[in-house]
Amino acid sequence: MKPYADLTKAQQQAELVALQEQYQQIKARGLSLNMARGKPSSEQLDIVNGMLTTLSAGSDCYDGKLDVRNYGELMGIPSARALFADILDTVPEKIMVGGSASLQLMFDLISKAYTHGLLHSPTPWAKLDTVKFLCPAPGYDRHFTVSSTFGMELVYVPMTENGPDMDKVEELVQDPTVKGIWCVPKYSNPDGIIYSKDTIERFIHLQPAAPDFTIMWDNAYCIHEVIGDYVPFPDILSLAAQAGTEDMFYEFASTSKITFPGAGISCMAASVDNIQYIQRILSAQIISYDKVNQLRHVKYLKDKAHTLELMQEHAKVLGPKFQAVLDALDREIAPLNIATWRRPKGGYFVSFYAMPGTAKRIFALCKEAGLVMTNAGATYPYGKDPADSNLRIAPSYPPLQDLQQAMEIFCLCTKIAALEKLLG
Amino acid sequence: MKPYADLTKAQQQAELVALQEQYQQIKARGLSLNMARGKPSSEQLDIVNGMLTTLSAGSDCYDGKLDVRNYGELMGIPSARALFADILDTVPEKIMVGGSASLQLMFDLISKAYTHGLLHSPTPWAKLDTVKFLCPAPGYDRHFTVSSTFGMELVYVPMTENGPDMDKVEELVQDPTVKGIWCVPKYSNPDGIIYSKDTIERFIHLQPAAPDFTIMWDNAYCIHEVIGDYVPFPDILSLAAQAGTEDMFYEFASTSKITFPGAGISCMAASVDNIQYIQRILSAQIISYDKVNQLRHVKYLKDKAHTLELMQEHAKVLGPKFQAVLDALDREIAPLNIATWRRPKGGYFVSFYAMPGTAKRIFALCKEAGLVMTNAGATYPYGKDPADSNLRIAPSYPPLQDLQQAMEIFCLCTKIAALEKLLG
Repeated sequence: MKPYADLTKAQQQAELVALQEQYQQIKARGLSLNMARGKPSSEQLDIVNGMLTTLSAGSDCYDGKLDVRNYGELMGIPSARALFADILDTVPEKIMVGGSASLQLMFDLISKAYTHGLLHSPTPWAKLDTVKFLCPAPGYDRHFTVSSTFGMELVYVPMTENGPDMDKVEELVQDPTVKGIWCVPKYSNPDGIIYSKDTIERFIHLQPAAPDFTIMWDNAYCIHEVIGDYVPFPDILSLAAQAGTEDMFYEFASTSKITFPGAGISCMAASVDNIQYIQRILSAQIISYDKVNQLRHVKYLKDKAHTLELMQEHAKVLGPKFQAVLDALDREIAPLNIATWRRPKGGYFVSFYAMPGTAKRIFALCKEAGLVMTNAGATYPYGKDPADSNLRIAPSYPPLQDLQQAMEIFCLCTKIAALEKLLG
Repeated sequence: MKPYADLTKAQQQAELVALQEQYQQIKARGLSLNMARGKPSSEQLDIVNGMLTTLSAGSDCYDGKLDVRNYGELMGIPSARALFADILDTVPEKIMVGGSASLQLMFDLISKAYTHGLLHSPTPWAKLDTVKFLCPAPGYDRHFTVSSTFGMELVYVPMTENGPDMDKVEELVQDPTVKGIWCVPKYSNPDGIIYSKDTIERFIHLQPAAPDFTIMWDNAYCIHEVIGDYVPFPDILSLAAQAGTEDMFYEFASTSKITFPGAGISCMAASVDNIQYIQRILSAQIISYDKVNQLRHVKYLKDKAHTLELMQEHAKVLGPKFQAVLDALDREIAPLNIATWRRPKGGYFVSFYAMPGTAKRIFALCKEAGLVMTNAGATYPYGKDPADSNLRIAPSYPPLQDLQQAMEIFCLCTKIAALEKLLG
């Protein structure tokens, strides 16, 4: 098949009719498929069932002399702080261990910025008329939702293949009402981009007007390679410390895609001053997060090296799924020259750029045929993709066979939407 | 021994000298004892070690068709909502299940009141110049700390033997800047008082000026009898619903003193409208709390009847400790007429009223002799007991023998402080 744009109108029309016929046949099957969320599959959950029996007697429940079954140890048990420090290449004093969701730690940090102010805040953000936050896009919809729920103004920053457009970032942070930025530095959601050395360099030397500028460094996929070997990534805190900007950075990670997504442990890593500041407020909020589950994770995951071995087991399940998505796109879409996509080596998504002006249409066509995708536009601030082009493909949850069927539908809908657009 | 006040000055002086000698001997022992916090003992933790093995295979991890290992089910798994509904005599639709700490749910509710406003808030509290909160005292220091950390003005309401002084409460709520009240309705912390029928009646008919007046109904000891049978307590939500005031009440409970204090589950119970309102904000904060631990609790605790049986096992450990405290006070202090104390049937504390003006001195003397007590004044707003009289005794954590030793020191210090005061 030739690129669609090279076909005559009559050829395009004939192709569209043929595809519409296929579409009707697929619709008639009454399928129910889902590529919407970065949700691990049952097969992945079964890999880590050993978690359930790691602690089985009271005598197992000690972290050194600390009985993890009882109250106390606000910032997390020592061994869990050490485990996250190992994974993130930092030190335990810079780690606070949380509950089952790093999203909650992020929400809570922003919430504290509003109610109490952060370490260098001249005033709590709730007292300000305008709070703006930079949203590199396409990005993670739940990040943008946190900002929205607090009434922030979301400022769009385009993503490049090296990370956020740093010219734009450096320009925007001159505005003192710009209070921070959302980042997924490794295997960015959804593009799967690893921030370049230069991008990181510019981040640690950023000179924002706001003294409490807050870099939400969500390292969600820090050890989440899907294809190929582990890719080391620099510890942002020590780099920033050298540049004198460590207090700007709040790093987040969790075991959500390492053990059980609904029942893992999470962490925030930050400068010792930041950790101590947060600890003071946190002491009014909670006596401790679930330390039994922290110890369960430490005993099961052991250390970074052992955790990386486990991640390879996940990759054995995920890799073929990512490959199936790429194979379908290479086979069905590439020759038509109607879309581009990333080829990530890790993370949970394949980011797809359809012909501008067709993403919403593809989403709707998929939905009608029984395939749920992440909302078109969800990866942009306010849910509005200026080009109406990006779609986030999440291959992890469906079994491989369902995924192949889902990609068949997705490619078909992409073609139909492109032809409709070309025929105008 | 006669009441101290009936002794001559010379007799008082002689007694003080004798006691000071005893005190020096005890100090020389270099003890390290603690009656500061309502912390279950190791013996209690061992009662519930069966928790650890309740779920041991992937196939155990289903609540109906729901795989609790994966993402989702924001408000808690159905069976856990049902369990808390059973315990609190309400319905699952009014229950939201949280993580390991009900304190966190309380903090978060207040935090949301500040950043978003509650269901009937004309404006988020962060936008107001003054927010006042009623603090019946003696009360729970951590409640008051939540209010303090958000910069509220804490308003002292005296406790009576029937609960908070409701004449005072009814008067104070005429002020529209008074936004709520802290309550521990059953076995109040520290007095161990059960709010009377009349108190509850007046609460549900309260007509505060603030449309978003918030009653923090911390039912921390809902099934926590220490001496004697389970005492039923009315479901505040259905009573308030009949009075048309259900939206004022936010009830909290947890398994902190049922299973593992550091690793239990918690809940908020509120009107369906309140639950739905909170759910909207919560959906930006978390994907779900730890559902594996929720299911672990459901399988272990089963239902209210079975949970009450477990609470009797805790009572077998706690009852003798409470009795030891009361026995020591009855024997050592009662004849001297220098203090009074409550005789609670449940909860975690014995509330002690020393001769006015001596509580801080008793605390200091205890500390010097190696016995840590809850700070004198901690049970009052701003840590200031107007009478400098109340001390909270927490008998749960030390082994019985340590507790007896601790009470020996406590009684001795109480006597010394009283004599010092009388000799003025």
